[in-house]
Amino acid sequence: MKDAKFSVGIIGAGNVGSHLTRLFLNAGIDVVICSSQKELLNIPELSSEKIIQDLSEFSEYTDFIFFTRRDRDLNLVLPALSKRHKMIHCSGSMDMNVFSEFDSYGVFYPLQTFRKEHHLLNSDFPVFIEASDKDTLHVLKKLAGMITPKVFEADFETRRHLHLAGVLSSNFVNSLYAAAYEQIPDKYDAAEVLLPLMKETLSRLDSGHPDEFQTGPAIRKDEETINKHLAMLSNHPDLQALYRSMSEIIKKRHS
Amino acid sequence: MKDAKFSVGIIGAGNVGSHLTRLFLNAGIDVVICSSQKELLNIPELSSEKIIQDLSEFSEYTDFIFFTRRDRDLNLVLPALSKRHKMIHCSGSMDMNVFSEFDSYGVFYPLQTFRKEHHLLNSDFPVFIEASDKDTLHVLKKLAGMITPKVFEADFETRRHLHLAGVLSSNFVNSLYAAAYEQIPDKYDAAEVLLPLMKETLSRLDSGHPDEFQTGPAIRKDEETINKHLAMLSNHPDLQALYRSMSEIIKKRHS
Repeated sequence: MKDAKFSVGIIGAGNVGSHLTRLFLNAGIDVVICSSQKELLNIPELSSEKIIQDLSEFSEYTDFIFFTRRDRDLNLVLPALSKRHKMIHCSGSMDMNVFSEFDSYGVFYPLQTFRKEHHLLNSDFPVFIEASDKDTLHVLKKLAGMITPKVFEADFETRRHLHLAGVLSSNFVNSLYAAAYEQIPDKYDAAEVLLPLMKETLSRLDSGHPDEFQTGPAIRKDEETINKHLAMLSNHPDLQALYRSMSEIIKKRHS
Repeated sequence: MKDAKFSVGIIGAGNVGSHLTRLFLNAGIDVVICSSQKELLNIPELSSEKIIQDLSEFSEYTDFIFFTRRDRDLNLVLPALSKRHKMIHCSGSMDMNVFSEFDSYGVFYPLQTFRKEHHLLNSDFPVFIEASDKDTLHVLKKLAGMITPKVFEADFETRRHLHLAGVLSSNFVNSLYAAAYEQIPDKYDAAEVLLPLMKETLSRLDSGHPDEFQTGPAIRKDEETINKHLAMLSNHPDLQALYRSMSEIIKKRHS
């Protein structure tokens, strides 16, 4: 296998599947993708014979089959696959032994957020791998190393924590960005007004831990401002509850 | 005043006071700062005779006196000041008429997060101004324009919303970063592992609204993963409550 070209099958053409396809193709890896939504795929580098609609069309000689659909869709897919495939999933919250019927299997978990419509701006994200056997681990490591310099091993327990960290620092952060944008009066451009602040908050983490940089009413124990903000959110009980929880977390963390 | 050099007094040498001092000095503006913590000031450009310890030492000819201490400290300071000063505060959550005893006054609200120990990485932040009269507004606008290209007018009501937006998108976001770092096992470098994800989440906002980029278990209505994460946070009830609120917000926003 040392000098041979890798060939990879991908199940699913959503956010993760589309991006893995692009990244593998850019690394010179052969990709065949299985998706019922052929027309939705926006990957010009992918020739149409590399898009299949039936799982049985994957060649037996494909090195790995990556499952990139939602965890809960796994059971729809497994019965249709030859047990001789090396099966890989990309989920932070699923055990690798979901593939225990297969000869060999593993996990390839990119700690990154993908939106299929947008090209990735930060491509040096880490990939956490795990495998059923040494050989599979070795090849998976090599494959991951072709798309990023940051390849780490991680067991399921570790991966669950990485995934939770990702939800907190990306999904939830993005939702706070949306809530903040909503507070900006229409006469201003929300992005113009908020991006310098948001960028400062993040870019100083290149030089230290977030705890060193905490500011705001909660760390100052400024109850008056906190209560004013809670009152402003009285028509938005979810955001009000969140404001309360977040202020408590900051106060306790810095008490 | 057109060709004269501005001179500015600053009350307080905390996060905001220190940074305004640096920014004004860099713009060629004369600064006198009043702080009892002379030895804590870390601004080499500031000669020691420009640091005073008593409010009465501000010259009558200082163009503006900026109050940068906590809102609640205002009452400790006001009685000691000549009513002929032009008084300016820098708060998002305080009315400008706290200075109504003075001849003229205003607000200079930078929507940015400052930590006195660290130099600013993003200096193109907006400043929102308001003043008691046209002349003061005019000069304040000129002064703000010397430190940033983004100068806007904003009344109190607007400023309150800008401030809340700042808390959500910076203070709370930073606290989520800290919570995420805590999830990363010691064997990894939390910054190395998480920064690419956090940077991707922010940098794609250069091309669209946060709502376009929401990912994660909540937008997928993936209750199984949400419940697993809630269970992982069972020893951290505050963070668990926050996880719940945030997931509800995302689900409703994208339903």
